[in-house]
Amino acid sequence: MNTVQVETPGGHYPIHIGPGRLDALADSIPEDATAIAVVTNTVVGRLYGERAEGALARSGKRILRIELPDGEAHKDWQTLNLIFDGLLSSRLDRKAVLVALGGGVIGDMCGFAAASYMRGVRFVQVPTTLLAQVDSSVGGKTAINHPLGKNMIGAFYQPIAVEIDTDVLDTLPSREISAGLAEVIKYGLIIDRPFFDWCEDNAAALRALDPDAVSHAVRRSCELKALVVSRDERESGLRAILNLGHTFGHAIESGLGYGTWLHGEAVGCGMIQAALLSALVLGLPDADTARVRALVQAIGCPVQPPDLGLQRWLDLMQVDKKTEGGQLRFVLLPALGEARVQGVPDDALRQVLALAAAAPA
Amino acid sequence: MNTVQVETPGGHYPIHIGPGRLDALADSIPEDATAIAVVTNTVVGRLYGERAEGALARSGKRILRIELPDGEAHKDWQTLNLIFDGLLSSRLDRKAVLVALGGGVIGDMCGFAAASYMRGVRFVQVPTTLLAQVDSSVGGKTAINHPLGKNMIGAFYQPIAVEIDTDVLDTLPSREISAGLAEVIKYGLIIDRPFFDWCEDNAAALRALDPDAVSHAVRRSCELKALVVSRDERESGLRAILNLGHTFGHAIESGLGYGTWLHGEAVGCGMIQAALLSALVLGLPDADTARVRALVQAIGCPVQPPDLGLQRWLDLMQVDKKTEGGQLRFVLLPALGEARVQGVPDDALRQVLALAAAAPA
Repeated sequence: MNTVQVETPGGHYPIHIGPGRLDALADSIPEDATAIAVVTNTVVGRLYGERAEGALARSGKRILRIELPDGEAHKDWQTLNLIFDGLLSSRLDRKAVLVALGGGVIGDMCGFAAASYMRGVRFVQVPTTLLAQVDSSVGGKTAINHPLGKNMIGAFYQPIAVEIDTDVLDTLPSREISAGLAEVIKYGLIIDRPFFDWCEDNAAALRALDPDAVSHAVRRSCELKALVVSRDERESGLRAILNLGHTFGHAIESGLGYGTWLHGEAVGCGMIQAALLSALVLGLPDADTARVRALVQAIGCPVQPPDLGLQRWLDLMQVDKKTEGGQLRFVLLPALGEARVQGVPDDALRQVLALAAAAPA
Repeated sequence: MNTVQVETPGGHYPIHIGPGRLDALADSIPEDATAIAVVTNTVVGRLYGERAEGALARSGKRILRIELPDGEAHKDWQTLNLIFDGLLSSRLDRKAVLVALGGGVIGDMCGFAAASYMRGVRFVQVPTTLLAQVDSSVGGKTAINHPLGKNMIGAFYQPIAVEIDTDVLDTLPSREISAGLAEVIKYGLIIDRPFFDWCEDNAAALRALDPDAVSHAVRRSCELKALVVSRDERESGLRAILNLGHTFGHAIESGLGYGTWLHGEAVGCGMIQAALLSALVLGLPDADTARVRALVQAIGCPVQPPDLGLQRWLDLMQVDKKTEGGQLRFVLLPALGEARVQGVPDDALRQVLALAAAAPA
């Protein structure tokens, strides 16, 4: 087992990474917890619910399961309210602990429920998708979607622990592995050039879930995310670089309807668009842009953005949280392994978006 | 104008208290605000919306008004969502500032919206009821209700400023003045015996809105609340004493349906019940219990709790957030001006609740 420590003003907590962590969940339940609510979805609940609850039972606490419908389409208030209904009808108090057993949607919703239930109860992240293991379970961003934008309603709220069982990836569809790998290579692109190179060399091994490759990729991703988050919990500066490809990606997800593309797929494609924008604005060499595109393709993500129409692209990006006073800001790459956030000239952006329209969908 | 400073880990901010503060709201808008959303209800909006917006216009910022239906019955997710709808459809970004113009319901909802919108934007409290001026606008508790309990979903989230215009109390119904005064005398009861004595001497002047008496009562209440909150922002200890009468009060509000009794009325009556419980458990002298009852009556609040039936009383109090591991805890008074939080014997509680059943409703 590897342990990565996250240190933020909002909380210090360990990320435990290794095979079989699902059977050790009781380790993360504090002595004074009055009850445990396992928040999961119908798919993950069927696969791992009983095993997780069996492991948690070793804590001796009362255990409640709250099962939500599966998918990004349900990351809304109605579904969030099912958590509150379950907690309140079972009379869980302020010392209860929530356990988010699932992917990014479950982690985000359970985290926001934990942040809001009785103004804050403790929670443990148990991410069961690669995307959640390397990204959303670490750093304390929680949220639900609003019809007018993704993750618009939420909180910065840190878990008390993250338990990553790398074995559970075996039951993940290959499309979700690819989507998770998009966030893995993102860390290389923004902050760790040698890790980007490593990802290029190990793309096939990662897709095939080679245990050593996966273990290294998850640990390194968590380390890099923890590093960024510890320096800037509330995204006032540095943390924004984690959004590489996300302004484009959110527009894709929202424009096609949440759930059509997986979040990681949209981010993978969005990183190519961000690289193209970096070429225009900062002179990122074409060879590097090509490498980004090649690696996104090698991990199995789509490389051609959908043709949403120029105006719709612009409208969708405008509502993204990364606007400030109306000006769109992007994470750009001056070089592979370096990132900065800045406004861009309108014509450069239009030129990149025109490529989405030009190619066949 | 008086200024009381609040210092918490979650934020430092001033409370400005005085006549005419409504015309000085621009003072509290930061330079870098990109827009202002005034969140109010239909009643307060009609009375003070234009004046507040006129004052805010001096900041030179774009101003949006979001008007919610009036009343505790609307302190729910559907109404909260109207705020998000308004903010998103007008594309307000992370640097927007919300202004809560109204009573406790507006303050709690606007505060929770500010805590959650894009994971947190700044907000200013402009409380227009006495209750909100002396209690809910200070200290950063925000929330909405759930069908299974009051204030069950929310956040600890501090405003950047509180602007208290004591003139606006002139348009407040006398019943709401009485309800607000219940929270004023609460501070005396829990932490400031001389202030309790002062309230006894000035009950009539306070009900008549004598400017000097009101000004002193508001300032002293804010000072005492700021003192408590600065020592314990997240209610892990001391802050709980602010809930004197609230476990009973919440049961009254919830049992009769939110909005039947005003929050302050329920708390006023609940403080008498808490005093009776203190007499049984801690030996608070009968003469002091009588003084509490007499002062609650003198400020114009009901002194006879409704007959909800013993079991329903117990059920309603059980869901209150102040339970821990199933045991009900109460704020009790060892003496007037002192408070402590502790579990109570079941028979003492039943004895106090029997009084609610025994007397005519």
